[in-house]
Amino acid sequence: MTNDLTADHRLTASDDNVHTTWDNAHDPVLSVSSGNIIEFECRDATNGLLDEDSTVDDIRTLAETNTGHPLTGPVEINDAQPGDTLAVDLLDFNHEGIGFSYFYPGEEEWGLLPEEFPEPGLHIWDLEGDIGHFVEGIEIPLHPFSGNLGVAPAEDGAHSTTPPRRVGGNLDVKHLTAGATLYLPIEVEGGLFSIGDCHAAQGDGEVCVTGVEAPMTVTARLRLEPDRDVDQPEFETTGPFSAFGPNNPAYGTTGISDDLMDATKKATRHMIDHLHEQHGLTRTDAYLLCSAIVDLKINEVVDRPNWVVSAYLPEQIFPD
Amino acid sequence: MTNDLTADHRLTASDDNVHTTWDNAHDPVLSVSSGNIIEFECRDATNGLLDEDSTVDDIRTLAETNTGHPLTGPVEINDAQPGDTLAVDLLDFNHEGIGFSYFYPGEEEWGLLPEEFPEPGLHIWDLEGDIGHFVEGIEIPLHPFSGNLGVAPAEDGAHSTTPPRRVGGNLDVKHLTAGATLYLPIEVEGGLFSIGDCHAAQGDGEVCVTGVEAPMTVTARLRLEPDRDVDQPEFETTGPFSAFGPNNPAYGTTGISDDLMDATKKATRHMIDHLHEQHGLTRTDAYLLCSAIVDLKINEVVDRPNWVVSAYLPEQIFPD
Repeated sequence: MTNDLTADHRLTASDDNVHTTWDNAHDPVLSVSSGNIIEFECRDATNGLLDEDSTVDDIRTLAETNTGHPLTGPVEINDAQPGDTLAVDLLDFNHEGIGFSYFYPGEEEWGLLPEEFPEPGLHIWDLEGDIGHFVEGIEIPLHPFSGNLGVAPAEDGAHSTTPPRRVGGNLDVKHLTAGATLYLPIEVEGGLFSIGDCHAAQGDGEVCVTGVEAPMTVTARLRLEPDRDVDQPEFETTGPFSAFGPNNPAYGTTGISDDLMDATKKATRHMIDHLHEQHGLTRTDAYLLCSAIVDLKINEVVDRPNWVVSAYLPEQIFPD
Repeated sequence: MTNDLTADHRLTASDDNVHTTWDNAHDPVLSVSSGNIIEFECRDATNGLLDEDSTVDDIRTLAETNTGHPLTGPVEINDAQPGDTLAVDLLDFNHEGIGFSYFYPGEEEWGLLPEEFPEPGLHIWDLEGDIGHFVEGIEIPLHPFSGNLGVAPAEDGAHSTTPPRRVGGNLDVKHLTAGATLYLPIEVEGGLFSIGDCHAAQGDGEVCVTGVEAPMTVTARLRLEPDRDVDQPEFETTGPFSAFGPNNPAYGTTGISDDLMDATKKATRHMIDHLHEQHGLTRTDAYLLCSAIVDLKINEVVDRPNWVVSAYLPEQIFPD
């Protein structure tokens, strides 16, 4: 997107403007009219606990101290009523040159394969424009988006920022890139929209539990669509649907099982094996790379009793 | 692919060359050397029970009489040993101008949403080159592949052709298009490769239980790769990963649930609602169209306790 979008409002990621739970009792930090454009400064998911000098030991600390995704907001949209739909036009994402992929020690039981990764892992990404540097010779294209954006739930109380809900939140839909529009069902007066948890890149699945977590500034337009009806979030996007364009060569590993979650785990394990055995990555790096760039697709869920999920690796990330 | 590939062998879809179970006791109908190119004539999944005059009543008959996917083969590959890997280079697919999408009556409990579709459904596709005609004004691009291809399992006996297994079979991986290579673990001497169940198009998920089922001729090269090790099928492909190219605008519906199968059903239900309410399709046509062109992706499987699966509809299928 161009940078000539003139924001009507700007929210910094100050302590006053950031919250770490979903709660309809959070006072709005800004009131806007439908159609306004807002620039949101967003902290990264670690709430600034990591920097370029962090080590894997800091991931243990993070696992113990992490309180929730820092979200910028909430923004009250004038006249928004329960039953209305909020359209969020995502206009622009700007990272700050650094990002973090990590997974927690297996005992924390986060991520898809905690039993296979007892020790934590960390990669600090150097982000340059549209490229992220992984290990020697491996770079990935960046397609930034927000992993966690939504409106306040009707149910009173402080809700964890981790699970996504019908009002949005931690959707981790990687296709909510600049140019996309997200439709959210409003449950409380004013809507109370918040956003954060930006990812410079992510594979469908986000298997290790993180994308390329990065502080960013997001520009978005908030529009009420009272006549649209959505039960859970819906969206319009142009992707991209493959990392390197239409003729993106991919390597696929299947997971075949009578349980969809088991099929998902098998496909991911097979991809980690492939990255380790064929490309010489450590298993830790392979898991991190899967979470950053490998896409999980459901090939079939009807050939009972066995379903097929496959993991797709874009092969152009490797040097010739 | 070009049509100047010279096949070393050709198998017609005669009764002698077609079988409807996976069974390592099936006698090979052809013996080939590693590297040979074979042209396989393949019947459609209905075994020719449908034609251009069929009606939805024929689907009830099909549900009662269907015996298994007709597969052309098996082909014995000289020197193939258990533990070897068979590389299947998929070179060319040629349809015959007709295809069938259908779903069985709900009582048969096939497909992702049998409880919501008690009555069967049928669409007979007119296929012209790379385009399939659905209803007035809606056309879909064709990307033909084989849904069911594999080698014989080590376990003795006649096995259903419906569930996929580690030796392949009914994988329904829509990216096994011309140009792709599939790697299969060989379990018996000679491998015993068979192929059929061609689809002119299919969405990831194949939610109603069929793609665009079509008789086709497939050209494939069979190569032994004794040094490659795969636990379940793996593949190389260039997709395509979106129906209309890189800037394919898509409409997405999420399914959010603490169960991955339930999330998959929700995403599909939301897409059927969208197609019905926003595009005026009957719910039957919406279900058929989802199975033919809508892709299921796993957005995240780590934000416990809720996972997100989304259904992606390429919007370019609709007239301006």
